Amino acid sequence: MHKFFNPKSVAVIGAPSKTGLGALNNVENMLRYGYEGRIYPINPKVKEICGLKVYPSVLEIPEPVDLVVISVGRDRALSLFEECVQAGIRRVVVISQGFADADRRGAELQKHIVELAKKNNVRVLGPNTMGLLNNFQNLSTGFVDIPRPEKYPHVSVIAQTGVLQVAPKDFAYKSWGKAIDIGNMGDVDFVDALEYFADDPETEVIAMHMEGMQRGREFLEVASRITFHKPIVVFKTGRSSAGAEAALSHTASLVGEDAVFDAVFERAGIIRVKTIAELQDTLRALVCFKAMKGPKIGIATATGAAGIMAIDACEEEGLELAGLPQGLSEKLKKGMPEWVHIGNPIDIWPVGMIGGNYPGAVGTTVTELLKSSGVDGVIMMTPAVNSPLHIDIADLTEVVSEARTRAGNNKPIAIWPYSDDHSVFTDRYEAIDGVASFHSPEQAVKGLSSCYKYHKLRNRAIPSGKRFIIDHDKVDPVLERGRKQKVLTGEDALCLLNAFGIPIVRGAIAGNWEELETAASELDNPFVLKLSGSAFLHKSEWGGVKTGIDNMGELREAFREMSENVFRIDPKLEIESFQLQEQAFGKELLLGLKQDSQFGPVIVCGMGGIYTEVFRDISREIVPVDRSVAERMIKSLGIYPLLKGVRGEKTVDMEALLDVLERLSFLAVEIPDLVELDINPLLVSETGCKAVDARLLW
Amino acid sequence: MHKFFNPKSVAVIGAPSKTGLGALNNVENMLRYGYEGRIYPINPKVKEICGLKVYPSVLEIPEPVDLVVISVGRDRALSLFEECVQAGIRRVVVISQGFADADRRGAELQKHIVELAKKNNVRVLGPNTMGLLNNFQNLSTGFVDIPRPEKYPHVSVIAQTGVLQVAPKDFAYKSWGKAIDIGNMGDVDFVDALEYFADDPETEVIAMHMEGMQRGREFLEVASRITFHKPIVVFKTGRSSAGAEAALSHTASLVGEDAVFDAVFERAGIIRVKTIAELQDTLRALVCFKAMKGPKIGIATATGAAGIMAIDACEEEGLELAGLPQGLSEKLKKGMPEWVHIGNPIDIWPVGMIGGNYPGAVGTTVTELLKSSGVDGVIMMTPAVNSPLHIDIADLTEVVSEARTRAGNNKPIAIWPYSDDHSVFTDRYEAIDGVASFHSPEQAVKGLSSCYKYHKLRNRAIPSGKRFIIDHDKVDPVLERGRKQKVLTGEDALCLLNAFGIPIVRGAIAGNWEELETAASELDNPFVLKLSGSAFLHKSEWGGVKTGIDNMGELREAFREMSENVFRIDPKLEIESFQLQEQAFGKELLLGLKQDSQFGPVIVCGMGGIYTEVFRDISREIVPVDRSVAERMIKSLGIYPLLKGVRGEKTVDMEALLDVLERLSFLAVEIPDLVELDINPLLVSETGCKAVDARLLW
Repeated sequence: MHKFFNPKSVAVIGAPSKTGLGALNNVENMLRYGYEGRIYPINPKVKEICGLKVYPSVLEIPEPVDLVVISVGRDRALSLFEECVQAGIRRVVVISQGFADADRRGAELQKHIVELAKKNNVRVLGPNTMGLLNNFQNLSTGFVDIPRPEKYPHVSVIAQTGVLQVAPKDFAYKSWGKAIDIGNMGDVDFVDALEYFADDPETEVIAMHMEGMQRGREFLEVASRITFHKPIVVFKTGRSSAGAEAALSHTASLVGEDAVFDAVFERAGIIRVKTIAELQDTLRALVCFKAMKGPKIGIATATGAAGIMAIDACEEEGLELAGLPQGLSEKLKKGMPEWVHIGNPIDIWPVGMIGGNYPGAVGTTVTELLKSSGVDGVIMMTPAVNSPLHIDIADLTEVVSEARTRAGNNKPIAIWPYSDDHSVFTDRYEAIDGVASFHSPEQAVKGLSSCYKYHKLRNRAIPSGKRFIIDHDKVDPVLERGRKQKVLTGEDALCLLNAFGIPIVRGAIAGNWEELETAASELDNPFVLKLSGSAFLHKSEWGGVKTGIDNMGELREAFREMSENVFRIDPKLEIESFQLQEQAFGKELLLGLKQDSQFGPVIVCGMGGIYTEVFRDISREIVPVDRSVAERMIKSLGIYPLLKGVRGEKTVDMEALLDVLERLSFLAVEIPDLVELDINPLLVSETGCKAVDARLLW
Repeated sequence: MHKFFNPKSVAVIGAPSKTGLGALNNVENMLRYGYEGRIYPINPKVKEICGLKVYPSVLEIPEPVDLVVISVGRDRALSLFEECVQAGIRRVVVISQGFADADRRGAELQKHIVELAKKNNVRVLGPNTMGLLNNFQNLSTGFVDIPRPEKYPHVSVIAQTGVLQVAPKDFAYKSWGKAIDIGNMGDVDFVDALEYFADDPETEVIAMHMEGMQRGREFLEVASRITFHKPIVVFKTGRSSAGAEAALSHTASLVGEDAVFDAVFERAGIIRVKTIAELQDTLRALVCFKAMKGPKIGIATATGAAGIMAIDACEEEGLELAGLPQGLSEKLKKGMPEWVHIGNPIDIWPVGMIGGNYPGAVGTTVTELLKSSGVDGVIMMTPAVNSPLHIDIADLTEVVSEARTRAGNNKPIAIWPYSDDHSVFTDRYEAIDGVASFHSPEQAVKGLSSCYKYHKLRNRAIPSGKRFIIDHDKVDPVLERGRKQKVLTGEDALCLLNAFGIPIVRGAIAGNWEELETAASELDNPFVLKLSGSAFLHKSEWGGVKTGIDNMGELREAFREMSENVFRIDPKLEIESFQLQEQAFGKELLLGLKQDSQFGPVIVCGMGGIYTEVFRDISREIVPVDRSVAERMIKSLGIYPLLKGVRGEKTVDMEALLDVLERLSFLAVEIPDLVELDINPLLVSETGCKAVDARLLW
């Protein structure tokens, strides 16, 4: 990837002869952008473009170039790509649209190009891309003339669109250092780009715009590694079902279930944002702040109203109000009238006005907040009034700078300089170490919050699934049967779970009354009797479940009734078998396992019973799930308080529940061809948990 | 209020002699702001301020002034206010802090001023306020020197802080027309200000910053009236519990439960926003757009990626994608390669580029979208690239203007001109009727969404509670007992509900076994037996509830067991009575009624049982609740699908449920001194609903 971003020479196939207004000429744009390498325009019809010698074909170029950019109609792309291969070129950007983003024919054309590339060790970026941008090398391959930014932080972006390159002011903090539009991801994709940025010394923060995913598992691994030393922020779109559909036609992505992406990002240590504005604020925070190591915020504000706005935002973001630093109240109240009250938020206006030294009051407050071990981050809200009568209080950059020096640490300071044009102060404030300037109290809080989020993500543990001993004699025959049938239900499914150490309710299968009687004699009452077999998928519709059977008489009665129910509905149907179980009690959970096409097995845990679909109280985690991930799953459920026990109830057996989740994770690893598994319900109580019913699909 | 905003003369008590840098001199500021009325600075120590003659006291001014502004230390405020009264002044702004916002003494001082004012027909604004701003009269009474804006829409703001006046660029759309900081609301409050803006021809949109409320019921009435002809947007802060606490000390507000405010705003037709950014976008939309009469959005975008972002935002805001206008696809695809696909979002980039007429493609698309009866609003996203090579496509103001003319309607067009400095295009786009320019796809959607929200609010019906006939012979004695005891529970509570026509389960109270036996003989089994009386508030802790009693034998057994349970726990406690009920079945709801200190009776409806506290699936409405409000309450519940019936279940008796809510509303009106009422549970089933237990508090 390095030479993609740092080519010494670039050939542009399909360079237009026209230049100037409306030409969309990428040779002209490259020159305007200041690219200093050699440029070879390719166009059989003209001799010169922008003063550069034009070649009729890449085959005529006197040297093997580092990079070729193709922007011709899709029908000519393949043959021109073949010429690149012939010319020994190793890196090609296909700008052209109309491939997998468009129709079947386009998808086939793209496939041909990619296959040809793979065979010849050529890497392809695109098709359907703006290409590359590298401000460290004055390189921009796009067809839109972008002004080269004066300032660009060490932030690199990977996008599935060119709009982030065209409009950095809308998406970036200041601008991008480097940008890559992976377009249709015909070859180069998120994983390739991430691997390059991982070790790139010019990249300190990675941003991503994502619509879909390929090589999900590799992505997860690479991103997980990176986030321990560089933050990654992702703006994943196509959250809604309609959005996901549009994404398909836009860059031909496979858009996965959005909730699975959340689980992936969390596992990989990636920060997810939901809007453009949030992307900008988050990048600003990650670039400007070093780290925020805890959630406690000290607020210095010239307006009480904004203090309340900041508190609202803190609560929303899970940040806390710090206690007042010791001695600060005394310092500030010196010489003040009795009614001046100092709390957090600290209302610095009356102190500054009555004392006649507003900058001094701010300086003392910010210094003491920074120094306090009980404060992790500072918010400062101050009037940046653009009037000659207020220049004494408008610009507090020196005050903040001195506070920083006096405190001697780099805790983040998020400033909202309200009233006039923010940009007047932004650069000056942000020249101070660990200071960022925002447009509102809410954004200041958001900035601090993402910084703290990254601190936690960076210090997360990598889960490694536990291994358990399983009884192969028990597992293997059932597994074989399942793989053959593509499905396991009832006692078979439970038996397999049990072999993996997952507790199940005891039960048996019986073909007739005699077998049922024998089975009952070996189980403890009360019993549950169920219809068994593939004909009865929705048992309740057949009257096929009877609970609370206390003795043989009631069992006999239930058996008779159930047989009659079936006969009444379908006289020709023969009942294959009955399932008899010991009745279990507890709170209903549902556990599941699902193969995600991108990210492999995903474990699901949630509220069971009739409320499942209504409240969608479900947590998802990527396999492997270890003890601490399992804990996170349970604790993130809405019903967690009920599991812990409310109104004096005892807590359920958490250890047993966590153990089941770990064993389910191990099962997913051991049976990698399993497509789906449901345990519904798993009954959890004080004394343990038991799977009552299960279904496995291959 | 009119003269507060339009005084012909203003006296400033406490005008500082110092002017210039750091003086915070409101006389100087008023002059700089261009106020053309007469200004009388009051200061016993100097003769002249800013070239104006200074008077030692208001009593010396040669005319009765329209408005007095007091900004002196709190201890001097009262006597100076007395002088104003003496001088026959009718309007006073008390800028000074340190009153109810500070401590008890301050609260008392404020009380004295307000009482004096009421007695003498003087209106007071404040204390603790920046005062007034009226750009139509070049009036600003604040101590901060604010630049007079060139442009200010007809938007007026009522705030509990001065920061919205100091920083209009952060809060307003362009700026405010008029602003009032009601501060501590000692006298002038939201209701007064609203009443003024209601009929003010210079006010077309009203914005509010709110921390707390007084005169809630009047507020609700006035706001409800206004929103049928002018939109009101409220930025209510202090949502979190910590924020609410800070608000108390900030402007001494009574901060109510935040969810009740939501119900109030909905009832009053007010749009609520949660952040500064949202406030700005909403005001922009309300000023620029005329109306959006439906939820269907057509999206014209030069970038597929932004199309997806807009779709995500639409889904979040409850807007829908419109169908493509008939014939548009054919028009756009003319001369295009086969792979060009036209859907909504409409990707105008390839059409414009391949066809060589990007502005034309945009014009056609926007015109057809506007014309289509299936489209209610348009989003247009286009590169506003600041390069000499792209001036042909950067500025589409004329294209949009022509589309507007050709379509001949004023459906809203929300534009995101991405890439360079938005402000270049904002004013030009927004000069076109019904066009607003936003900073992101998400904000464009939000803008349209608030416009549609206002359309719906404006067309809402005003609920008027139904009256029911009640059996006074039954109600009056129980009511009297309740008022005396301050509480009603068990059979008494149910009896009262029943008298209001709310169905209850049948039951009786029995003091001993014989009475129980008699009661049972008059009721239908199965029964429920409960301990009764104030000693057993949490019955389950006493083993005091037994369900599923089928016959006299089981009842006798339950009676014996319950008596023993109580004896075991507290041998000295005598059981006053037992409650016997017919057992009812159905889904558990809880219904409630609560006197809100500001807004009067609030009706609450939600999920009952063990999940109540976990999912907080509750809806709230202000009394009166009519049929359609009751429907909204039920439909807004998460469990609504379960009430409608899932998996082939039958729906519960909705008519019966709605009737109970209406009757509860009537009860709230009839028993206005009731403080709290709980029905928990109300069991709802196919065949009706029944209150099982209830509690009323006075």
